[in-house]
Amino acid sequence: MNGAMSEAALEALVARFGTRIETGEAVRAQHGAGDSWHAAAAPDAVLFVDSTAEVSQALAICHEHGVPVVAFGHGSSLEGQVQAVRGGLCLDLSRMDKVLRVSQGDMDCSVECGVTRQALNEDLRATGLFLPIDLGAHATVGGMASTRASGTMTVRHGTMRDLVMGLTVVLPDGEVVQTGGRARKSSAGYDLTGLFIGAEGTLGIITELTLKLAGIPETAKAGMYAFASVDEATACVVEALQCGLCLNRIELLDGLQMAAINAWNGTAHAETATLMVDLAGGEVQVETDLEMFGALAEGHGATAHPCETPEAYSAMWALRHSALYAARGLRPGCKSLSTDVCVPVTELPTIIAAIGAEIEAAGIVAPMHGHVGDGNFHLVMLFDPEEPEEQETVRALNHRLVSMALEHGGTATGEHGVGLGKKVFMEAQHGPALGLMKRIKQAVDPKGILNPGKIFDL
Amino acid sequence: MNGAMSEAALEALVARFGTRIETGEAVRAQHGAGDSWHAAAAPDAVLFVDSTAEVSQALAICHEHGVPVVAFGHGSSLEGQVQAVRGGLCLDLSRMDKVLRVSQGDMDCSVECGVTRQALNEDLRATGLFLPIDLGAHATVGGMASTRASGTMTVRHGTMRDLVMGLTVVLPDGEVVQTGGRARKSSAGYDLTGLFIGAEGTLGIITELTLKLAGIPETAKAGMYAFASVDEATACVVEALQCGLCLNRIELLDGLQMAAINAWNGTAHAETATLMVDLAGGEVQVETDLEMFGALAEGHGATAHPCETPEAYSAMWALRHSALYAARGLRPGCKSLSTDVCVPVTELPTIIAAIGAEIEAAGIVAPMHGHVGDGNFHLVMLFDPEEPEEQETVRALNHRLVSMALEHGGTATGEHGVGLGKKVFMEAQHGPALGLMKRIKQAVDPKGILNPGKIFDL
Repeated sequence: MNGAMSEAALEALVARFGTRIETGEAVRAQHGAGDSWHAAAAPDAVLFVDSTAEVSQALAICHEHGVPVVAFGHGSSLEGQVQAVRGGLCLDLSRMDKVLRVSQGDMDCSVECGVTRQALNEDLRATGLFLPIDLGAHATVGGMASTRASGTMTVRHGTMRDLVMGLTVVLPDGEVVQTGGRARKSSAGYDLTGLFIGAEGTLGIITELTLKLAGIPETAKAGMYAFASVDEATACVVEALQCGLCLNRIELLDGLQMAAINAWNGTAHAETATLMVDLAGGEVQVETDLEMFGALAEGHGATAHPCETPEAYSAMWALRHSALYAARGLRPGCKSLSTDVCVPVTELPTIIAAIGAEIEAAGIVAPMHGHVGDGNFHLVMLFDPEEPEEQETVRALNHRLVSMALEHGGTATGEHGVGLGKKVFMEAQHGPALGLMKRIKQAVDPKGILNPGKIFDL
Repeated sequence: MNGAMSEAALEALVARFGTRIETGEAVRAQHGAGDSWHAAAAPDAVLFVDSTAEVSQALAICHEHGVPVVAFGHGSSLEGQVQAVRGGLCLDLSRMDKVLRVSQGDMDCSVECGVTRQALNEDLRATGLFLPIDLGAHATVGGMASTRASGTMTVRHGTMRDLVMGLTVVLPDGEVVQTGGRARKSSAGYDLTGLFIGAEGTLGIITELTLKLAGIPETAKAGMYAFASVDEATACVVEALQCGLCLNRIELLDGLQMAAINAWNGTAHAETATLMVDLAGGEVQVETDLEMFGALAEGHGATAHPCETPEAYSAMWALRHSALYAARGLRPGCKSLSTDVCVPVTELPTIIAAIGAEIEAAGIVAPMHGHVGDGNFHLVMLFDPEEPEEQETVRALNHRLVSMALEHGGTATGEHGVGLGKKVFMEAQHGPALGLMKRIKQAVDPKGILNPGKIFDL
């Protein structure tokens, strides 16, 4: 134990939860890291909770004893959000995975926080509805809300901020509050729902969510478009956005990322800046818009490869979803710093070119892919963990990337969150507004027990 | 003066702003009421500000002296948001009306808070872009953000919560903070932008906004559909939403509202539950979807009146926008309590029938219209200001309406905000979460100078 959990605290927890308070090394280690390049930090104990009431009871005890509490869903966070850097109790919420209610007519549902988006969509299949968030990761909706996750369909459906209508949240002292509700909109007071989304478990523990759902579209068609440069691809995206095409996904991959995908999947696509585009809606609309997109792409010199069959459609999106693993496959045995920034779409060419030049000059392998309709892109920077200098170079490049994003009106992270990795940029990004965030944190969690050391230090 | 502004405070304000601190009765009276049924309450003084720096200086002085501050845009708020119930200084922001920046490529702009949506859209005309918020009122974007306004196009474009990407806000002590930015999404810390939207000027004064814009659609077509009942109309809306039609607006008006519109405009439309529907997008898509909507409406026994010409289209939407004035015209000389609630769409028939029966039993004239795609509707309850009993009946009906909305999973207000009128319902709606709102208010505005007495009492 690192001292965060006193004997008295542990006794109180064991008095309530018995042997369910687990302190074995394996389970602690398993809960001390997400899918990130940050050093692991195990909690002192782990509790698999089954209900909001249990979360409330656990928090009340931890609050009384000043024990740090970290929420854990599926452990897929990329910026060290689940690392128990000050020890304490990890609340594993993955067993709270019930779908509580689905309303087909209102196109919404209420779920427990631990359900994964995959399991929810499986559950919804018969209704013709789905949760329109398409991430690379296997993630719980509670974790997705807590990091304000988004993914490939944001260009059409928005982020978790747009899809969550209401929450059940347990506050640091164990009080349970309901925020928002089932109305599609509300002007009744402060947007507490929005405040907990993206707070990374530092203000409260989300235990239930009410979510907007979307109808599965009548048709979806897709295609791959190879451009001579990122500039041409981005210019094409800007035009497509302005035309109001029924875009469902519009993803950009650079030449190196395409090369990685080819190597990983045994394919032979052009290894140049590529757009993977998905249009969804009614049959006629999709046909019309796909043709229009084709014309726009041609105007920018692209070579078009429309997916002619449902199998080709699925195969193309499988390639896209292999991007992270394919990137890591470029240097087996290496680790990866997976970073993301988001900028106004028209700033993409400048910033991608500038960071690309620095990456090349530094001799680092770092393929790029992104949700270009939102101006959000990822670099997977590979480094040899045995080479401290290379790791330092990669860190420095990440700093350069974020600095450039901020200079160009963007944000340090579009969808991965702050966690440990982006904390250092919060002062530069927010200025005096960071002080306001801290005042809110102190008002909601005066003892500072919830996920301490994340987003900012007090 | 009602004592909120001390001599010393007034002297300090005059020392900085000279004769621009206006204390004449006329200007004070003009700033003491919006477009609401609530009693007017004039501020002690009014200052027309020209810049964020001036707002900051005025707040610093008021903060030092404990003077209440109320922000004033165009005075169109419906729930008493601008009433200076504890006196103090009114900051009139209407001169801060500059459009600061428009990016066609990124489909966004930055503006000062005092620009009206009408003036902004006029300014944007040449760009092919517009701010897709269509209210009945002539309102400033700062006021619209502060009440989380929405209107007829929410079903497609969302509310101000969805359209504001960033803010400049002056905090109670005069500190200026920037929230959000120009990135389409961000996971970098707490959603402060969302916190100020809908806060009705109780947490800070919004002085600048960065807004998402939408492309003016290639085509829009509309039609009016007369149904035998609200139930049939609502059932048709639910189906249209599930089909994912390219709905731009879908508005419901009851028989009495249609009668009021006929009388006001000299038209002769069926005086029964009516949907006014607007579809927008590409030519082919709009044609296809309009046909499909026609088939759905026919399935629910509706009589269709599509708008065959652009003139007919404009005329129909002019009728819709006359709804409030037409409603008030039913009893000339009377006042109106204009209330709004929002519920899950499938709950609409139940609640509309139930409140309709109570209204009828009480002998009150109260036409209904609403943004049915969101489950949001308005009742304009007319009362004779000389008849205290009638006024009491109308208040009681408003209470019944909100109680029913809350019982059916809805909210006390979908878009008008809380102000003075809906305060009494906040405990019932939010429960313990209301306490959290108060903690946030106290953390951000410990002296309680910003728009005191609104949303909740401390």
